[in-house]
Amino acid sequence: MSRDELTKIMLPEEKIPKFWYNVQADMPTLPPPGLNPQTMQPLAPSDLEPIFAKELIMQEVSQERWIEIPSEVRDLYKQYRPSPLFRARQLEKALDVNSKIYYKYEGVSPVGSHKFNTALPQVFYNKIQGIKRIATETGAGQWGTALSLACKLFGLEAMVYMVKVSFYQKPYRRSIMEVYGAKCVPSPSNLTEAGRRVLEKNPDSNGTLAIAISEAVEDAIKRDDTNYSLGSVLNHVCLHQTVIGQEVKMQLEMVDDYPDVVIACCGGGSNFAGITFPFIPDKIAGKNIRLVAVEPAACPTLTRGVFAYDYGDVAGMTPASMMYTLGHDFMPSGIHAGGLRYHGDSSLVSQLYHDGLIEAVAVMQNPTFEAAMLFAQTESIVPAPESAHAIRVAVDEALQAKKEGVSRTIVFNLSGHGFLDLGSYDMYLSGKTEDVALSDTELQESLKSLPRV
Amino acid sequence: MSRDELTKIMLPEEKIPKFWYNVQADMPTLPPPGLNPQTMQPLAPSDLEPIFAKELIMQEVSQERWIEIPSEVRDLYKQYRPSPLFRARQLEKALDVNSKIYYKYEGVSPVGSHKFNTALPQVFYNKIQGIKRIATETGAGQWGTALSLACKLFGLEAMVYMVKVSFYQKPYRRSIMEVYGAKCVPSPSNLTEAGRRVLEKNPDSNGTLAIAISEAVEDAIKRDDTNYSLGSVLNHVCLHQTVIGQEVKMQLEMVDDYPDVVIACCGGGSNFAGITFPFIPDKIAGKNIRLVAVEPAACPTLTRGVFAYDYGDVAGMTPASMMYTLGHDFMPSGIHAGGLRYHGDSSLVSQLYHDGLIEAVAVMQNPTFEAAMLFAQTESIVPAPESAHAIRVAVDEALQAKKEGVSRTIVFNLSGHGFLDLGSYDMYLSGKTEDVALSDTELQESLKSLPRV
Repeated sequence: MSRDELTKIMLPEEKIPKFWYNVQADMPTLPPPGLNPQTMQPLAPSDLEPIFAKELIMQEVSQERWIEIPSEVRDLYKQYRPSPLFRARQLEKALDVNSKIYYKYEGVSPVGSHKFNTALPQVFYNKIQGIKRIATETGAGQWGTALSLACKLFGLEAMVYMVKVSFYQKPYRRSIMEVYGAKCVPSPSNLTEAGRRVLEKNPDSNGTLAIAISEAVEDAIKRDDTNYSLGSVLNHVCLHQTVIGQEVKMQLEMVDDYPDVVIACCGGGSNFAGITFPFIPDKIAGKNIRLVAVEPAACPTLTRGVFAYDYGDVAGMTPASMMYTLGHDFMPSGIHAGGLRYHGDSSLVSQLYHDGLIEAVAVMQNPTFEAAMLFAQTESIVPAPESAHAIRVAVDEALQAKKEGVSRTIVFNLSGHGFLDLGSYDMYLSGKTEDVALSDTELQESLKSLPRV
Repeated sequence: MSRDELTKIMLPEEKIPKFWYNVQADMPTLPPPGLNPQTMQPLAPSDLEPIFAKELIMQEVSQERWIEIPSEVRDLYKQYRPSPLFRARQLEKALDVNSKIYYKYEGVSPVGSHKFNTALPQVFYNKIQGIKRIATETGAGQWGTALSLACKLFGLEAMVYMVKVSFYQKPYRRSIMEVYGAKCVPSPSNLTEAGRRVLEKNPDSNGTLAIAISEAVEDAIKRDDTNYSLGSVLNHVCLHQTVIGQEVKMQLEMVDDYPDVVIACCGGGSNFAGITFPFIPDKIAGKNIRLVAVEPAACPTLTRGVFAYDYGDVAGMTPASMMYTLGHDFMPSGIHAGGLRYHGDSSLVSQLYHDGLIEAVAVMQNPTFEAAMLFAQTESIVPAPESAHAIRVAVDEALQAKKEGVSRTIVFNLSGHGFLDLGSYDMYLSGKTEDVALSDTELQESLKSLPRV
């Protein structure tokens, strides 16, 4: 290995973005307004005040292009930002391709994923409004961990409803949330009406993000001192994650490069939004760049869902938004990328997909772990199973370019490390992970839960 | 929180040290020579050739002050080095002290601990000598993980004998080694004579590092394509870790500071050596600086052991070295800092302790976890239980300074993160961790295993 074979592209601290980039300022079509779940009439911002901080509601509907990052949040970003951009030279070599593969590494945050980027501002805005406690849901546990730490740092209590299948698949996720002082319960729980309703129908329910959201929202509505916080999907969450893509642009400029394709896994959409939205203006201006969202074949929201109004949660307590969705009753199989099992997608991501500005692809579980293993053994970092979806497609893109006899610049977001996901790797290594694609029958069934608008 | 409340002190890539610092060049007294375990006569370097790469043997006995880091190793250091030095402002605030507390964070390595600093050069020197396979032992699993990845990056096979109690306490450690392509078995195993001998006497043996070392050494002796690799204790391992302390000195210079006290946990001694040895010349020159090794009260090698010749392993296959030791038959209780359960200590560290150049202190398990929790909730990083020993003493030093009405500059090495140690935190949080100190009877018993010289 020679001097040039390892590349870490670092920005100085002062290059941490001072503003978040709001894609709503540049979208050719804005998503239609959210609907009040009771009246199915367009939502007024004030409808959200019982559960969200005012500043976050303003960000949700803002069309300002740049929104300033509060200094209190930016100071905490400084512990781990700017995050490194790596050139994956060892991976390129192992694949024997001449495309350039770069990855942005968000696993350097103290909680090990990009989720901390939005946990900090969400808790901050709640704190300055006098809120004392935050209720939230978590799937794989990345979000719950980030929210727990952010709450501890700003002196708020955290209450986390964790999708039951992940709660038991990843017991150390609960542990780390408790280390950060949070309370974490498996969802469906008997602490809420929404949870009890699910348990009555199906005491063995594995849980879903949509159920856990219902529980957390109900918790927040019931208590004056408590607000609700969501780790993806919403416009303000996508907004906060744009620090990622802004840094990537500056880092690529440092090496005089520009991507042909930017790839990220897509669950609720904020990770994908974070790295790709800052490239949307270039795309609109006619730049030849592809932005690719990767989802599991077991939960193919963009690639096989419908573009329709749906609720964000199972009980229909959240506003109905226009999105690609599999139906809020959708019950995904227990694949190991717990963060990618959500029935819907961010309205912003959905609209951009609908308008052809972004692409989507669905991949199976085993080829994804295969790519993750190759990555770990060449680039040294064990990726989170969610992030491995992006690796799979980055590898496929590089191989495809080779087949076409061209060299491309491929960038993907390594949204988190897999130190807390080693149980999943164990399953893969012992041949126990299945390749499950959603069946048409299941899809048609779950689409029946779409609300009438 | 204001702008000044978070400080990450970063060095540019070109400041990664180009040389390791060899403390043997400056020690007032060199440790007496190691003894051949068969003859108990002073060891010739060639006695080590059946199991170690020649370059490592030369480093073991070298008295050159600076030893150049091969560019192949330094290139791989670049993925994670220079590691950050943080000012622990939130911890200081929580403790309400006016001392300055800094921590060097080695958890940024892809394997999550400082062990990678020596795994890379060890495997590299074996590779250029044509060795195809490395056998090693691991306690908590940090070392085995580092060695596994280094082997994979340089294209060698790794065979890891893991202390049985840790193998079952930390199942994901085996998983990550397997992700990196290594083979990992619980020790004592029935793959070696040394393992079988222990199992005959005690089929339920929890294992010890000393047993696992015997197994790995036997494995390496038996196979021509295989060498042995040790993750701590030896002179060359301490040498490789000095990149840590060299960076710390430069980082403190950047903020115009110098430590009153440098603290690190001490198992075999290489982590402690890594951060403190570069300060030894200053100490010898009369600088007012204290270098403090922290060990668990359950395995108090420096604070309660004897300074004598002892073997590094249970079977007496390794050379006998002059060291502080509890006797190589010592069976530590199953505390959660698996990396600190070794019966002996590095000869270099032992000699420096004997000569009064360094200090040592032993701490209990529960106060250590208490400090770890406080650290996680203020500084955001969940520390490895081993590293938490250093935190405990750093906190105590800051509180003591407050009592004395003075402000001190306290630096400690946060040698690794605790993402794979959350089971231990779980035990602590549920009140199941015990405060165990070694009893005099146990100590006298295990000292009987010291060889006659």
